[in-house]
Amino acid sequence: MKRYEVLASEIANSIRTGVLCAGDRLPSVRHTSTSRQVSPSTVFKAYYLLEAQGLIRARERSGYYVTPSVRQFPPELDNPSHPQDGAVVLDISERVFDVFQSTLSREAVPLGSAFPSPVLFPMERLGHIMAACVQKMDPWSAVDDVTPGNADLRRQIALRYLNEGLHVHTDEIVITNGALEALNLCLAAVTRPGDTVVVESPSFYPALQALERLGLEAIEVQTHPREGIDLNALENALTRHRPKACWLMTNFQNPLGCLMPNEKKKALVELLTRHDVPLIEDDVYGELYYGEKRPISAKAFDTAGLVMHCSSFSKCLAPGYRIGWTAPGRFVKAVARHKLTTTLSTSAPTQLTLAAYLAKGGYDKHLRKLRHTLASQQTVFTQALGHYFPEGTRATRPSGGYCLWVELPKSANALEIHRQALSLGISVAPGPIFSAKRDFTNCLRLNYGHVWDNRTEQALATLGRLAKSHTGIHN
Amino acid sequence: MKRYEVLASEIANSIRTGVLCAGDRLPSVRHTSTSRQVSPSTVFKAYYLLEAQGLIRARERSGYYVTPSVRQFPPELDNPSHPQDGAVVLDISERVFDVFQSTLSREAVPLGSAFPSPVLFPMERLGHIMAACVQKMDPWSAVDDVTPGNADLRRQIALRYLNEGLHVHTDEIVITNGALEALNLCLAAVTRPGDTVVVESPSFYPALQALERLGLEAIEVQTHPREGIDLNALENALTRHRPKACWLMTNFQNPLGCLMPNEKKKALVELLTRHDVPLIEDDVYGELYYGEKRPISAKAFDTAGLVMHCSSFSKCLAPGYRIGWTAPGRFVKAVARHKLTTTLSTSAPTQLTLAAYLAKGGYDKHLRKLRHTLASQQTVFTQALGHYFPEGTRATRPSGGYCLWVELPKSANALEIHRQALSLGISVAPGPIFSAKRDFTNCLRLNYGHVWDNRTEQALATLGRLAKSHTGIHN
Repeated sequence: MKRYEVLASEIANSIRTGVLCAGDRLPSVRHTSTSRQVSPSTVFKAYYLLEAQGLIRARERSGYYVTPSVRQFPPELDNPSHPQDGAVVLDISERVFDVFQSTLSREAVPLGSAFPSPVLFPMERLGHIMAACVQKMDPWSAVDDVTPGNADLRRQIALRYLNEGLHVHTDEIVITNGALEALNLCLAAVTRPGDTVVVESPSFYPALQALERLGLEAIEVQTHPREGIDLNALENALTRHRPKACWLMTNFQNPLGCLMPNEKKKALVELLTRHDVPLIEDDVYGELYYGEKRPISAKAFDTAGLVMHCSSFSKCLAPGYRIGWTAPGRFVKAVARHKLTTTLSTSAPTQLTLAAYLAKGGYDKHLRKLRHTLASQQTVFTQALGHYFPEGTRATRPSGGYCLWVELPKSANALEIHRQALSLGISVAPGPIFSAKRDFTNCLRLNYGHVWDNRTEQALATLGRLAKSHTGIHN
Repeated sequence: MKRYEVLASEIANSIRTGVLCAGDRLPSVRHTSTSRQVSPSTVFKAYYLLEAQGLIRARERSGYYVTPSVRQFPPELDNPSHPQDGAVVLDISERVFDVFQSTLSREAVPLGSAFPSPVLFPMERLGHIMAACVQKMDPWSAVDDVTPGNADLRRQIALRYLNEGLHVHTDEIVITNGALEALNLCLAAVTRPGDTVVVESPSFYPALQALERLGLEAIEVQTHPREGIDLNALENALTRHRPKACWLMTNFQNPLGCLMPNEKKKALVELLTRHDVPLIEDDVYGELYYGEKRPISAKAFDTAGLVMHCSSFSKCLAPGYRIGWTAPGRFVKAVARHKLTTTLSTSAPTQLTLAAYLAKGGYDKHLRKLRHTLASQQTVFTQALGHYFPEGTRATRPSGGYCLWVELPKSANALEIHRQALSLGISVAPGPIFSAKRDFTNCLRLNYGHVWDNRTEQALATLGRLAKSHTGIHN
């Protein structure tokens, strides 16, 4: 990230967090140049960028001002979900596919996509490293790197755990084809057809699809859009349904973006340990925090080997490489064997490449830049949302990741908006695909992980018009 | 492959097929040099190589002779298996793992391995191509190459089908993490827990593991070591058990090495079509034929979209890359969706690399060399087997692939030989892991796909001694 981009992102952050409010005058270029110890041209570039993002506006002979309040954030969504009680036999997968396919087109504005923009990643540097790796690749890698996977890569992952304060042994780590395989292997290792499994409400839809495929029933548990699953509701579910696993996303949950506080994570693990229920912890967004440091994972509180931690490099470093992993506690042998009988192994050249990239450094620098970018894209995106969407719209304001959850006024039909938007070249992820019972009929998950530009702004304006036409609310 | 290696391999083939018999004198160096239009030094090098392989022997002032009959081939195994009747609930997977792990050590002579030697593959050339590909890789590949997979790679695979005379549409092809994922996806697409599935006897053990994992029952059907599954026995099984699928390896079956004749393949597909039972056709060895041309696959006779053809590049081009595929007929949508919910996608850089390699040519040249090497390794290996193993030993003589099946005298205990051999640094694949009922207690699958050298010969000598000590037969 260039110096002016860092500066712009810091100022955007000040606007996002309310340090600078609508109408405030920004310090002069000369003042900022001195206080930040950067050249005046750097300050100018930063201000131009912020202006292009719609965050500030120049007034002739007067300087730059934070864009006035027409671009307020929408009210934050802060009431928990209220899923119906009971276990549900799933029938959601086909509906999800219809939506999923629509998000893959390059023509559509990908607001319904589950992937961030691929241009945010160091693909060229990874390419150089891969080129060097494969040319000196030991032909025996094909045998040596078979499941549980390349030893160097597993050691690098263990080192990252160590930096987060987690002692995960290299031998506990199994390399997988992305986090999705890791999650599916963990689920298969601890369940049998007919079992019940706890998920959040709303849920990560691939979790619902995995349950459906394995003949499992879902128990959707009340979830708060800022703090995650409700532990009282979870305890009730554990007692009443005796589920065989709990599949949760503790950091920046998809679709809500909620982040479970540390104390709550600790209580969660203690609760599950008392009930001897394994936690399948999906932590693919953990590295994409906007705060000071990485949120810890529930795995950090595990003393019984019950937490099956799953993650990948697909959202934060190397999309398309399909390298994920799991550290599944006491289930490691079962998980590895399950992988040996289903996909045998993970691609050796890509494993070697990521091991070399992690060893050479550069990952943390890339992540810092990525987090800055995502945080400032959230600001602009959410403000535009507030500007274009009907009154009564509420949205989550996640402190990490690249998705947010929008609740429209009750009368809006998200599936209908999805269909209408698609015919206008815009994809969105409608609420009902995130629920076994097809709830959240007035909600959307929107992806702000693509570069903010005029096309995105126009897409939000169009969506806003569609939402208004549904609700009859025209301001 | 160098010129002298080509020549040596052709002569080895003549010995293998009986054109040259034990004791025959080889043509003089001068004669061969003229008749083959190569330099005398090329002929010398070829003869030295054949001598090193134990196939010919020099007699002073007289020339080279085919090694005398102490190195005869063992009698060919030509009686079909006799599996017990009925469907079997499986409990084999753990036993397979114990054997599988033992084949991964670089220290052990890998006669029990399911992989050919990685040094037989153009890893360096693939590395160069991958280096070029990844450096110009479109960041959007991560999205574009999602399941069903990279369009260029699928087109290249469709072109290879076309060269074999099969019209498979690009849209019917789904790229997978190796053939094992393809096979598992196909199986899952057409079965539900409790269903029965037909397999060969002996069976490819990952098929048994897949059935066990999915809660399916196996019907093992009589199989001939040269011609594959018995169609009468299969018809009985279809009528009696109404299986939901048939998982067969039509070309160079693992472990027998049998090749189903074309007419029989046609009859097989007609029979299955009459019973409306899908054929999961595992064809990973099809390219490794020693004859004039590639054996066709049963898929060629499919008119009802019932044949789910599965293959990969792992055994013939790029081990460790984990690129396989399936052309699953009318089940393509179900298979692709199953993949989307389990591993989502296959690694984009490796897909791009294989697409580029296939487009640039060189694959057929590599394959010709590989086939030559495997065919001559089979000759030396099988002759050594005949030399060292006890009387009464019989073996298959596959016309492709790199594994053969050895039947020892009845009193030999293959699992015990496996354990004893392992303690002496040699892995073997014991017969019982290839059977749901743990039959074939006196059989071994041996891999001759590793470079023939003194270590391999000593390993066969050791195995022969072990077999003799079991059987009390000392010649």
